Amino acid sequence: MIEKVGPVPLADILAAQARLEGIAVRAPVARCEAAPDGITLDLKLESLQPISSFKLRPIGNAVLTKPAAALGEGIYTSSSGNSALAVAWMARRLGLAATAVVPEATPEAKLSGLRRLGAVIERLPFQDWWRAIETGGLPGRAGCYIDAVRDPAALAGDGTIGIEILEQCPDVEAIFTPFGGGGLACGIACAVRALKPSVKVIACEIETAAPFTAALAAGERVVIPFDPGFVSGVGFGQVLPEMWPMVGEMIDGAMTVSLDEIAGAIRTLAERNRVIA
Amino acid sequence: MIEKVGPVPLADILAAQARLEGIAVRAPVARCEAAPDGITLDLKLESLQPISSFKLRPIGNAVLTKPAAALGEGIYTSSSGNSALAVAWMARRLGLAATAVVPEATPEAKLSGLRRLGAVIERLPFQDWWRAIETGGLPGRAGCYIDAVRDPAALAGDGTIGIEILEQCPDVEAIFTPFGGGGLACGIACAVRALKPSVKVIACEIETAAPFTAALAAGERVVIPFDPGFVSGVGFGQVLPEMWPMVGEMIDGAMTVSLDEIAGAIRTLAERNRVIA
Repeated sequence: MIEKVGPVPLADILAAQARLEGIAVRAPVARCEAAPDGITLDLKLESLQPISSFKLRPIGNAVLTKPAAALGEGIYTSSSGNSALAVAWMARRLGLAATAVVPEATPEAKLSGLRRLGAVIERLPFQDWWRAIETGGLPGRAGCYIDAVRDPAALAGDGTIGIEILEQCPDVEAIFTPFGGGGLACGIACAVRALKPSVKVIACEIETAAPFTAALAAGERVVIPFDPGFVSGVGFGQVLPEMWPMVGEMIDGAMTVSLDEIAGAIRTLAERNRVIA
Repeated sequence: MIEKVGPVPLADILAAQARLEGIAVRAPVARCEAAPDGITLDLKLESLQPISSFKLRPIGNAVLTKPAAALGEGIYTSSSGNSALAVAWMARRLGLAATAVVPEATPEAKLSGLRRLGAVIERLPFQDWWRAIETGGLPGRAGCYIDAVRDPAALAGDGTIGIEILEQCPDVEAIFTPFGGGGLACGIACAVRALKPSVKVIACEIETAAPFTAALAAGERVVIPFDPGFVSGVGFGQVLPEMWPMVGEMIDGAMTVSLDEIAGAIRTLAERNRVIA
C-alpha cells in the first residue's frame, strides 16, 4: 500500500520542469472571451499537450525518475483515460513496452488512442481494476507500475503547471483546478505555496463526484455516492486516504459545478475561444 | 482605386510587431498529432487570437498606422467575417465607432459576434458590397475605411506571423498558408524572404475558389467560376489585379484542397489536437 503523500519541495518541481523539456510543452494561456465583465479569466490550455492532457507532466516525471533498471520489463498503469495515454506516449518515446489496465466495460472509442500509441490493453473486472488503483499496481505482475496521483514525482510534474501559471499570469489571484485524485490540485498548490503563497488554489469538482467538497463540509474524509455522468475519468467517491492530509492543508477551497454547467462551458469555449476542453 | 501593392520591408513588419504588443497574442505552435510518419507538421494556432483569427494583426496594424485625425468619425470595413470582427475589436479598444458593411444575405449567426463588440451593421446588395471591397470603401461615406488585404500596413501586420514562425520553428522548411485575398500569404512571404529566404511559402486554396492556382497554370491572372461552398469568407474568383505582381513574385507554389479534405482536417484537428480550425 502507498503511504501518506506529502507536499513536494520546489526544488523537485524545478527538477521536473527540466526533465520534462521536450516532452510536455509550455501550454499557452488564452484570455477567456466569455468571462463576466470586470473579471479577467485566463485559460491554461493543457489541452494542447501532445496527448491533449496535462497528464504527460506527472506521468512523464514519474517515469523519468524511476531507476533505469526498473523499466526493463515495461511500464503499466491502471487507467483507461489520459494517464494511460501518457504512459503509452512515454513508453513509445523511451522504447519501452506499455500496458494499460482498464475496466472490462471500457468502450472501444477510449482504447483507439492507446492502440495507436502501441499500448497493450489488459481488461479487468471493475473491482480488480479499482483495487489496482488503490494499491498502486497488480500483485506479482511484471513491469513498473506508474502512479499518476500519489507518486511524489507525479506531484512534482503537476507542480510545473503552477510555475508556468505564475510566470504567464503574474497578476493571478486564484487558480481554479479540476479535482479528481487531487494530484493536479496539490502539485499546483505546492508550487504556488513556495513561490507566491497569496494565490488561492481552488479545487473544482463535479457535483456528481465531489468528495473534497463533502470532506470540507464534514471536516473529515467521507465516502459519498459516486456517479460521474458523462464526465468519465475524473472524480472519485472519496478523497484517497493517503492524499487527505495534504489536500486538507494545501487547497484553499472547493467549488462544485453541475454537468449542465460543464456542458455549457465546453460549448462556450468552443464557440468563443475555439478550443475543445 | 487602390494602386499596385508591393512587398513591405522587414522594418515595417518589426514596427508592426511592436505596435501589436498587447493586441495580437504570440499564438503558440502545436505539433500536429496526425501528421504522416516522417513528416513534422506544426500548427500555428492563430485561432487562439482574441477574435479567433489572425485578422487582428493586419487590421490592428492598419488602424494603428492611420493618422489620429482620420479616425475621429470611426472606422469601417466591407466584410461579414473576421476582418469586420477585427475592426470592431480595435474600435472598441480605441473607443471609436465601428461599422461592418455586409452583404444583404449575411445570416444572423455571423453578425452576433459583431453586435457583441458594439459594431453597427450596414447591409448592402451583394454587388455594391463587392464593389466596396474592390475600390476600398464607399464613396462619400464618413469614417475611415480599413483594408485588410491591400494596405501595406495590413501586409506588415500579416508579416508578424512569419517572424514568429521562424522563431518558434527554427527548422521550418515550408509554410502552408491559406490564400484568399493574398495578404496573409504575401505578408508572411515578406518576412520570410528577408529573414530566411530558403523557406518556401505555399498558398493553399479551396478547389472551389482557386484563382492563384489557375493563374500559376495560365501564367497570368484569370477570372474563374467561384463557389466557396461551406467555407464562406475565404476565396475570391480572381487574384486582385493590384496584388498579382507581388503574389506571382513572392509565393513559391500553390496547393488546392477539396471541401472534403477541409472537413476531414477540421475533424482530425478537433479529435487529435483539441483545436477548432
